[in-house]
Amino acid sequence: MTQEGRLERLTGMLRRRGFLLPAFEIHGGAKGFYDFGPVGGRMRSRINQRWLDHWLELGNVVELSCPTITPFAVLEASGHVGEFSDFMTQCNACGEASRADTLLENHHPNPDALKRDELETLLHDVKPSCPACGAQNWSDVSAQNLMFNTSIGAGDSGRPGFLRPETAQGMFTSFNALFRHFRERLPFGAMQVGKGYRNEIAPRQGMIRLREFNMAELEYFIDPEAPLDDDLSSWDSVPLTLISEGNETASMTLSAACKKELIRHSTVARFMGITHNFLVDVGIDPKRIRFRQHEQDEMAHYAVDCWDAEIEGSYGWVECVGIAHRGCYDLQSHEEATGKTLRARREFDEPRTTEIDGWTINGATAGPAFKARAGQVKEAVEDLPKSTAFPYELTLAGGDVVVVEPEHVKANRKSIKETGEWYLPHVIEPAFGIDRIIWHVIDHAYQETEKNGEPYTMMGLSPSIVPVDFAVFPLFEKDGMDDMARQVHQKLCRTAGVVSMYDGTGSIGRRYARADEIGVPLCITVDHQSLEDGTVTVRNRDSGEQHRTNPESLA
Amino acid sequence: MTQEGRLERLTGMLRRRGFLLPAFEIHGGAKGFYDFGPVGGRMRSRINQRWLDHWLELGNVVELSCPTITPFAVLEASGHVGEFSDFMTQCNACGEASRADTLLENHHPNPDALKRDELETLLHDVKPSCPACGAQNWSDVSAQNLMFNTSIGAGDSGRPGFLRPETAQGMFTSFNALFRHFRERLPFGAMQVGKGYRNEIAPRQGMIRLREFNMAELEYFIDPEAPLDDDLSSWDSVPLTLISEGNETASMTLSAACKKELIRHSTVARFMGITHNFLVDVGIDPKRIRFRQHEQDEMAHYAVDCWDAEIEGSYGWVECVGIAHRGCYDLQSHEEATGKTLRARREFDEPRTTEIDGWTINGATAGPAFKARAGQVKEAVEDLPKSTAFPYELTLAGGDVVVVEPEHVKANRKSIKETGEWYLPHVIEPAFGIDRIIWHVIDHAYQETEKNGEPYTMMGLSPSIVPVDFAVFPLFEKDGMDDMARQVHQKLCRTAGVVSMYDGTGSIGRRYARADEIGVPLCITVDHQSLEDGTVTVRNRDSGEQHRTNPESLA
Repeated sequence: MTQEGRLERLTGMLRRRGFLLPAFEIHGGAKGFYDFGPVGGRMRSRINQRWLDHWLELGNVVELSCPTITPFAVLEASGHVGEFSDFMTQCNACGEASRADTLLENHHPNPDALKRDELETLLHDVKPSCPACGAQNWSDVSAQNLMFNTSIGAGDSGRPGFLRPETAQGMFTSFNALFRHFRERLPFGAMQVGKGYRNEIAPRQGMIRLREFNMAELEYFIDPEAPLDDDLSSWDSVPLTLISEGNETASMTLSAACKKELIRHSTVARFMGITHNFLVDVGIDPKRIRFRQHEQDEMAHYAVDCWDAEIEGSYGWVECVGIAHRGCYDLQSHEEATGKTLRARREFDEPRTTEIDGWTINGATAGPAFKARAGQVKEAVEDLPKSTAFPYELTLAGGDVVVVEPEHVKANRKSIKETGEWYLPHVIEPAFGIDRIIWHVIDHAYQETEKNGEPYTMMGLSPSIVPVDFAVFPLFEKDGMDDMARQVHQKLCRTAGVVSMYDGTGSIGRRYARADEIGVPLCITVDHQSLEDGTVTVRNRDSGEQHRTNPESLA
Repeated sequence: MTQEGRLERLTGMLRRRGFLLPAFEIHGGAKGFYDFGPVGGRMRSRINQRWLDHWLELGNVVELSCPTITPFAVLEASGHVGEFSDFMTQCNACGEASRADTLLENHHPNPDALKRDELETLLHDVKPSCPACGAQNWSDVSAQNLMFNTSIGAGDSGRPGFLRPETAQGMFTSFNALFRHFRERLPFGAMQVGKGYRNEIAPRQGMIRLREFNMAELEYFIDPEAPLDDDLSSWDSVPLTLISEGNETASMTLSAACKKELIRHSTVARFMGITHNFLVDVGIDPKRIRFRQHEQDEMAHYAVDCWDAEIEGSYGWVECVGIAHRGCYDLQSHEEATGKTLRARREFDEPRTTEIDGWTINGATAGPAFKARAGQVKEAVEDLPKSTAFPYELTLAGGDVVVVEPEHVKANRKSIKETGEWYLPHVIEPAFGIDRIIWHVIDHAYQETEKNGEPYTMMGLSPSIVPVDFAVFPLFEKDGMDDMARQVHQKLCRTAGVVSMYDGTGSIGRRYARADEIGVPLCITVDHQSLEDGTVTVRNRDSGEQHRTNPESLA
């Protein structure tokens, strides 16, 4: 088979066999929404579970589950209310909404870096055709927030809320519960597998750009002063393809990339390694994985470093994972918005003594003089240098000016001994787009070959994430072969974690083909000999080899 | 400890230890939303997985995953747009919204059975106090739809949608994909574990009435003509508490209840048995489970039978599972709304022959006479009895009347042989409220005792769903005991499905107490002897017994 039309044949098969189907299709469908069907549903669960298992190995990571509906205040603090938007324009002829940058892809090298007015000028200049109706008449460009909004509560007491654009915020707001759980010792992490939402202006590319998606994120909290001593030796024989800032591509080990300071934090490097392990474990071809560093202007202003894992498939190279060193941005934002403390404590090796030599207020005189503002005055006076001369005009936080006379103050000389300090932890965040990964697992596993001159398709899925572990066939549905096959099938189904499928119709060759198409690793056939000696034929998907065995030995 | 205050102590502990925490608390919180924290998150995953495993044992059930955002048309077809509402009133003093029936609980035996105007009359008559401000001045009563609404897509091209109130609809609309997957043979089922949403007017009772909840549903499609031959013998020694319609309580086996026709379908009975098994498996006290049949007037009009599994706990008896025989209502509703077919085929034992003796059109004359409407005329003429006399005034589906002359028709006599027929399957639906079940698992496991004269709490959780399998302690964090304890811990963490927790601070007694409080079944201590001979002490949560073993033998 040629590559031409492969994507169409693959998506047709996925639909026909129940891997992935456009959602709500009998009701006319809805762009950007997919169902994981009778085959795909189990595969999704298994890949989620493998992801959790990989990170649980760290030994200091726990799983959370937070609501998807999120109040306005939380996403205002995180910056999503203000920043999470795309530039939109609408066709004046048919009303269809489009992303302005997408329309201009052939007219500018990097349209998504343009500002609103630049996009608008270029759009009205170029007049691209509407993808829906072909007209060339566009509205002005406006920023469209990409969060789905809703209202929490009924009637006038309803409060604005959104569907979360990422799972991360619930983990930041849970910081204090995590800190307590880990007995106040960093580093530690929280992870969450669940739905994320993005009200795309114009979804496209199947599973790559969905409005409701499965994501998996880990927020790993670290002390920014801790040594960069992550052990990277287990990847010393696994050079990875790294495209560092400035577009230099190299095949390099993680240790080497850290030594060269291409990767700026050893935990980022370690998480790139774990990401690579996970992707290969679920079946991604390691030759089609690369890590690309964000350019400075592509990175959020607070980010220290960010690497994407990109996977190559039918849509080219697609970003599937982002591993970002986010500094203290997230915890600090929630602290500032709420006035609550989200900090960890660092003990000094030796207690530290600070000598204070300055001024403070004389309560007996300053109290009556400044009344309710005495506390504010005290705080401001204690910040003044020793050299200050009184009377002194002091500007308070609210802007008021008070005159502090010599009799209001006295010398303040003392030493303060501190055994440690509170600080804002930094966060390293690996964020995985599970749907995109599932898509590429399928894309890499899908094999189009020939058998007896006919096209033949096979899914070479990794046994750790196959949707169905065993297919059980009676050679014929008679003479007790069907009963025995059903017994073998039922026994497999009673084994936790094992999925078996019974198939009694069509020729055995046709049933093998159906099982191969969805990647079943082992097919079990009950035949005449089974009725005599209790053995069954087991046929291996990849080698095609068959052998007889006792069905008790299978699961 | 007395029972008094137990609920407050339990919820305080759940929060402190990271089982369940009110969500978004640093931002002021949001009623009806909970976080599963560092301990509860894993427990939730495990209970979900146990649920899937129990139903997978049936051998003909698959897992799906459908979007939570659902277009208007789908939920209009299901009846939720029209019917899914509570009666609301607002306090005219403070604006707080309340459920009218809840306000009238002490003034009527069954206020949730009242109609809108009855509620309104009673409300204005009784004038209950506002739970928020105490005023007694209520607005009129209105039906408030309980779905969270949103808009899919940007700008004017946005379409109305809702967050799903149940997972079920995605499984009904997937019927044809399921039918194909199961090689067109009923019975089969689809199940889904995921979020459901209900914009409660006034959430209360902690985890019992949430706005965003975890649910697990199975839609099991059956042929209504298939024999009622489910095997119930495995429950013949397990009498269940059944409260049948009319409030008669009996302790009875499922077989007996089917024989007496208290339970109207053997598959409903089997699913009640599986539900009982699941609940006991995850740790619900079997003495605190009962099954209550819906009264005729409590049941949806289309339902054939419905049994709730109720669990007794701190909030009294609470409905946690509903097992409903829904007839063909759901598939039929989607058929009617979409014009698409959602049917299964039943083959007859013997082909059936139908003799036709009537009329059809004569194409040569009727074609030119009726033009585009000839097809409609043909269909209507074929429905006329043999005795019809022509000319005949025929009323077409659209209301038009045409006159059919004798020359437009000819006799139609033939026999049609059919080998089977298409029919609407019936559905049996077990629907589980996972949060309510988790709440009761915790409630039943929570034990308040004393140790050395001090209050002592213990979670006697079933090992199959504990949040943490092992706690590993170094006796002291020095002399290499900490290193060895970390090695033991790391090795356990690398075992898929196992969660271990390292705890190095405080006395060993204190650490045992902390582990007991969250239900860790086994605590492992590394002490001086461990450094010499490599063995560790393993202490059992329930018996308190300790023995020494090689850590390799643990997982």
